[in-house]
Amino acid sequence: MIAEIHNPTQSPHPPRVLVVDDSKTMRRLICLALQDAFELEEAVDGVDALERYSGFKPQIILLDMEMPRMGGLEVIRQLRETVEDTDTFIIVLSGLGENDLKAKALNMGANDYLTKPFHPEELKARVSVAGRQVLLNHELRRAYARISAEIALVASLQHQLLPNADIVTEGLEIQSLYRPSGQASGDYYDYFRMADGRIRLVLADIAGKGARAAFLMAIVQAFFRLGRRDNHSLEKTVTLINDHLMEISPSGSDFATLFAGEIDLEKGFLTYLNAGHCPGLLINPNGTAQLLEAQVYPLGMLAIENVKANVIPFAVGARLFLYTDGMFEWELDQSNMLSLGAFLVQAKLAAAAGGDFLDALAGKLTDLTGATPKYLDDQTALWIRRSGPTAAKRT
Amino acid sequence: MIAEIHNPTQSPHPPRVLVVDDSKTMRRLICLALQDAFELEEAVDGVDALERYSGFKPQIILLDMEMPRMGGLEVIRQLRETVEDTDTFIIVLSGLGENDLKAKALNMGANDYLTKPFHPEELKARVSVAGRQVLLNHELRRAYARISAEIALVASLQHQLLPNADIVTEGLEIQSLYRPSGQASGDYYDYFRMADGRIRLVLADIAGKGARAAFLMAIVQAFFRLGRRDNHSLEKTVTLINDHLMEISPSGSDFATLFAGEIDLEKGFLTYLNAGHCPGLLINPNGTAQLLEAQVYPLGMLAIENVKANVIPFAVGARLFLYTDGMFEWELDQSNMLSLGAFLVQAKLAAAAGGDFLDALAGKLTDLTGATPKYLDDQTALWIRRSGPTAAKRT
Repeated sequence: MIAEIHNPTQSPHPPRVLVVDDSKTMRRLICLALQDAFELEEAVDGVDALERYSGFKPQIILLDMEMPRMGGLEVIRQLRETVEDTDTFIIVLSGLGENDLKAKALNMGANDYLTKPFHPEELKARVSVAGRQVLLNHELRRAYARISAEIALVASLQHQLLPNADIVTEGLEIQSLYRPSGQASGDYYDYFRMADGRIRLVLADIAGKGARAAFLMAIVQAFFRLGRRDNHSLEKTVTLINDHLMEISPSGSDFATLFAGEIDLEKGFLTYLNAGHCPGLLINPNGTAQLLEAQVYPLGMLAIENVKANVIPFAVGARLFLYTDGMFEWELDQSNMLSLGAFLVQAKLAAAAGGDFLDALAGKLTDLTGATPKYLDDQTALWIRRSGPTAAKRT
Repeated sequence: MIAEIHNPTQSPHPPRVLVVDDSKTMRRLICLALQDAFELEEAVDGVDALERYSGFKPQIILLDMEMPRMGGLEVIRQLRETVEDTDTFIIVLSGLGENDLKAKALNMGANDYLTKPFHPEELKARVSVAGRQVLLNHELRRAYARISAEIALVASLQHQLLPNADIVTEGLEIQSLYRPSGQASGDYYDYFRMADGRIRLVLADIAGKGARAAFLMAIVQAFFRLGRRDNHSLEKTVTLINDHLMEISPSGSDFATLFAGEIDLEKGFLTYLNAGHCPGLLINPNGTAQLLEAQVYPLGMLAIENVKANVIPFAVGARLFLYTDGMFEWELDQSNMLSLGAFLVQAKLAAAAGGDFLDALAGKLTDLTGATPKYLDDQTALWIRRSGPTAAKRT
């Protein structure tokens, strides 16, 4: 793929050049020199140039400086700043004594200049250099845009996979955050109601970033959703994911950490399995905090046998905070990262504050560091609060 | 992501310029004009220039034409043709009378020229234009390379998922072809032995191309491998895939066609399910051909219920050809595509010819069209031949 951008194909169309000068003689001279190799249009001053710019879409502009109505400097300013066109190659035509003007033009974003009077051959050489450059830039941007669109399609599918809030049952409030650092992401969260009314939830972080992590995330998501359809236990789902990741990547380099839980609203219990993931933060109804640490290794590294989920109380008023390490792995300054411990202290404070938890946490972190956190990785978080005293069911 | 390549960050290092001229006075003049804004190195002739090129890695070369030992033209030829460096910006320094030489240099790949004698300011302007261009190209290439590497990681994982020939049992010969049109692909084939000794195989084509199709391919592959571990029937596996694709993309735009089969070597039967895929071509031991057409729609479009696989004889000498439509959807000429019918005629001829089937088929297609086929899509194919009379098992 790289090969194609080293040797851009010659465009079948000659580059479009807009010739802007208030002297008819000068325009004729220029067009005569360029007409064999370029598609040309003329403009008589800056105002005329900007009008023709939209329709003609020049790739190169030959621009006189001193013109009535609007001079060359203002044309450059409008194109570079107002229209935000940084692509069109602007060659300034300056008089012998206009060194200051020329310097200003180059500073404002002109690409090159030609001093009048010039030899036709010199003009043609300057414009040809510009034409080759325009073509190369165009090919490079096209190659980038094509491949970038490919990743964007993955990202849009990933967003589509995230759960809709409306599948949540009464008795639970769920807040989520999903902020991929690139386009495609290896982070994933999900929650849904099982056939027996329990609420299953998962938050996972696939090793690596980008499209390859997204590829593996598709697998993790598929096995979780399969668990709902075929009514698998948490242990079964986690074992299926582990076995499959081990099979497709025996080296263990493609692994996933995850926290999977299931809330039984009627009995007031949380069943959970933490596979190498950051500890879940459980806040009990009385305000005491408890860390739900990993019971098994990250999935895809080692065969797991007889894995057993933990079961703990999750009564009305209990809250659970799940997050990926992207939430706390950011730089305090050039040499220090925020530690997990310091992050959890802030999370407990945010939980105690009440109100919108994720907003409160963001506020605490900003207060702590004195600046907006500089995140380095995908960030994903779930905040679950057991709210109502009843366990009304939606069907 | 696009934003970053519109406004490349200024490199912290000044561009490296190699000044090549046999006149010490000229080199001094040039270096004096450029020393504030560029990192400079001098070479006294073409041979010296090529030697310093490797170590100094210039981004811009100022190149005199007439020099002892090796002139400028030969330097350009060596860099562009032998070293295949198309990036370094070469500015030719030509004398007033050397118009022919200058034209030759530009034709051979020089980017720009400067006529001696030149004003220091003119020199600085030319080199600055080159420097900006070099920087922009560098940023564009970096952005492309980074995102391209992301897709390459997906492609490498996909290749890793393809089966190894050594899991095949005695009594079957399997030939495969996998030729993605881009890097990441939506095509997939697989074959493996089930716990009871039967050989399961699948060939699938996910709608669309590139990384998004690869994302969905990961799901199809995961459910097939799950079928082996949990001993699912073909019907169960196909239903799981259909249900999951419907769930994650309710619009039906992300679908997959596939041919899934299972060969019972002991009893001599082929069980198969064709979901909207090209017909499998079965050649019976007596040489008669049979098309195994789709029984259900492509997966991910409609709920399927009570799907039932077909069971047909597959005795010693029977052969099965599975393929994606990329194998026959290519242009005969500007307005005609090869039809499926014409393709199958060639496949039957290739099967009758004996020997290496996929080679024979490629030969027939080339003969038919008088040229190497112009493929437009991913191509994947499986050729399965029931060879031995016994059903020896590997464990």
